[in-house]
Amino acid sequence: MTKKIKTSPHFNALAELNNEQIKKILGHFNPLKVKRGVNLLQEGSVSKHLYYVQVGCIRTFFIDKEGVDKTSYVVAPDNFGTAWSSFIFQQPSAEFIEAAENSELLAISYKEFFNFIQTDLVWKNFYLKILELAYLNQSRKIEALMTLDAKQRYQKLMKGNPALIQKLSNKTLASFLDMREETLSRIKSKK
Amino acid sequence: MTKKIKTSPHFNALAELNNEQIKKILGHFNPLKVKRGVNLLQEGSVSKHLYYVQVGCIRTFFIDKEGVDKTSYVVAPDNFGTAWSSFIFQQPSAEFIEAAENSELLAISYKEFFNFIQTDLVWKNFYLKILELAYLNQSRKIEALMTLDAKQRYQKLMKGNPALIQKLSNKTLASFLDMREETLSRIKSKK
Repeated sequence: MTKKIKTSPHFNALAELNNEQIKKILGHFNPLKVKRGVNLLQEGSVSKHLYYVQVGCIRTFFIDKEGVDKTSYVVAPDNFGTAWSSFIFQQPSAEFIEAAENSELLAISYKEFFNFIQTDLVWKNFYLKILELAYLNQSRKIEALMTLDAKQRYQKLMKGNPALIQKLSNKTLASFLDMREETLSRIKSKK
Repeated sequence: MTKKIKTSPHFNALAELNNEQIKKILGHFNPLKVKRGVNLLQEGSVSKHLYYVQVGCIRTFFIDKEGVDKTSYVVAPDNFGTAWSSFIFQQPSAEFIEAAENSELLAISYKEFFNFIQTDLVWKNFYLKILELAYLNQSRKIEALMTLDAKQRYQKLMKGNPALIQKLSNKTLASFLDMREETLSRIKSKK
């Protein structure tokens, strides 16, 4: 059973839309079921879809030069995500996208999405909001990477989003917090 | 004499506007001269201005728990910048903003900027473009922080933006690359 992670309305891309607008927008997304571990995008390919997570979660990650998996972003239920830099500029992605759990998604193609954005102000405002939130998440990530050590990063996530800690496997959580699995286990056991 | 760093037109927020639109937008910004080292924003304050760099450069930075200065972002000439997360959500900033050189800026207030965005499609498109570029820069930063070691981060910047290496002081450059000054000196001398 997958638990839903509640997001604050202020920090949800759909929060400023009325029900009719939400229905209209999500009505253009197509349902997609993916098994845990399935890649939705390979590094080097161009991201052609934006996803909305209904159940489960997806993550974006890099593979560094030593072959270590580094999670850059986790998209929890009720949130939108993709490999944004690749999607926006239609350039090869530095990141993979993977279903981190068995997931039920809604997907829209780049072409359709940007057509709507260019012609419909509701879509444009919606895109702006998703982008603002994606920016905010990234800047929190940079702050954590630059100013906190492994233990502090764990504690911050524990305080800010404890549901995510329960949701992710130890491997993915360690990769998301940019630490080794052994370090995560040590931190968890010392709590 | 400050050298201008050329940005690719595709990656410039003004690139998709015609001269008249650029004039119209920048006409609402106010000129501001700041000496090197002056803070434009303190950590904990709300970012009330968006800046356009004409000459010089500004940077955003954190101070970590050990009191170490960590540069998150450098805004070169012809680019826009602020402490975005604070500016967008009008929340206290985790970052400082500082003039990294004697700089000539143009500034617009949050209030005026968001008024234009809500009423004028040219402004909205312009905002979307800056935000997309700010996102791209952040995601490159995350990739560098998560997947590259100190030497590789230096080499990547050397390849992608050599002018920035010449422009920034060793202290700021080391802080931007998330390494100690001694490490930077060692890498530079081994080139």
